[in-house]
Amino acid sequence: MLKVYGDHGSGNCYKVKLLLTQLKQSFEWVEIDILNKETRTPEFLAMNPNGKIPLLESKPGTYLSESNAILHYLAEGSELLPDNRLDHARTLQWLFFEQYSHEPYIATARYIVRYLGTPAEYTKVLQEKRAPGYAALDVMEQYLASHNYLVGERYSIADIGLYAYTHVAHEGGFDLSRYHAIQSWLARVASQPDHITMSGE
Amino acid sequence: MLKVYGDHGSGNCYKVKLLLTQLKQSFEWVEIDILNKETRTPEFLAMNPNGKIPLLESKPGTYLSESNAILHYLAEGSELLPDNRLDHARTLQWLFFEQYSHEPYIATARYIVRYLGTPAEYTKVLQEKRAPGYAALDVMEQYLASHNYLVGERYSIADIGLYAYTHVAHEGGFDLSRYHAIQSWLARVASQPDHITMSGE
Repeated sequence: MLKVYGDHGSGNCYKVKLLLTQLKQSFEWVEIDILNKETRTPEFLAMNPNGKIPLLESKPGTYLSESNAILHYLAEGSELLPDNRLDHARTLQWLFFEQYSHEPYIATARYIVRYLGTPAEYTKVLQEKRAPGYAALDVMEQYLASHNYLVGERYSIADIGLYAYTHVAHEGGFDLSRYHAIQSWLARVASQPDHITMSGE
Repeated sequence: MLKVYGDHGSGNCYKVKLLLTQLKQSFEWVEIDILNKETRTPEFLAMNPNGKIPLLESKPGTYLSESNAILHYLAEGSELLPDNRLDHARTLQWLFFEQYSHEPYIATARYIVRYLGTPAEYTKVLQEKRAPGYAALDVMEQYLASHNYLVGERYSIADIGLYAYTHVAHEGGFDLSRYHAIQSWLARVASQPDHITMSGE
């Protein structure tokens, strides 16, 4: 059976849990506490030398890391990964956008606020996340103003990848109230069959 | 004909140029000067709302951004994109690693040193790039100590993606002298048929 090593509060790990649920694929979840540095133990580093979660064990001893690479692997051959060449590439374009232009600001701000409790030494770092984080939301808003989903007008792993941290952006202090297209899209994603919330409901 | 909008000194743009050359695919190069903010003009933002290069125009009016999504798109069906499911996923794993754990430190340090000339206000930022940048190099070194290439023991877009900024890491102040496996791998990549340098030679 597939095994997923993840932290229940991590958006990157939630992506994998949400996709597997929607693919109706059974899996074992192994909780890894990042705050307790459980990704830095010798045992974990032997599985993923980059020391990050989520980590997929596709069969005993075979590991795959990087949340969006895991999404791509799991969705291959399903309706959640567009199979025409350009839409496939655009799915990856959004997933790379997520990891480079979105997650480092929106997810990291949430981590500082929610997990670290915004300690004084992080005030400036947190402040510096705002402009690039809102810039990423602006890019999404502009696109979603005229599209229902991120690729090919249907739900795909691009939506799962971007939903994970966008729907909890407020937990890092981002105000989504003026992002009407994003809000409608978040509701569309949340109304997909077999959707689960981050807490697994 | 394919059109690539890029800056000749950018590693992300070099990836695309190198791959197209090795695929023996002709293309038109449109030079975009990032220092001159040519990615922020209304004309450029109409092509890529995220305001970044490289940008591929696959046919007139059809654009694809994100260097590693472009690599994947162009390499599909060629020997440079592994086609078995796990190796394909591992190719993406390395490319996501590059954009999240490697480029933001190693490429950005180079940008600060080489393009901005290390202004005083960047001293601390530059310093903060060192530990995570070396951590990324450590992950590569550990893997390459027992592998010739990043995926499936043959040259692929994973190698192109990681080569781009690793081979110029010293320009950002990273010392590669103790990374023997990386050095051997850099030489193997540079000896591939139809290899070109960043300056196009």
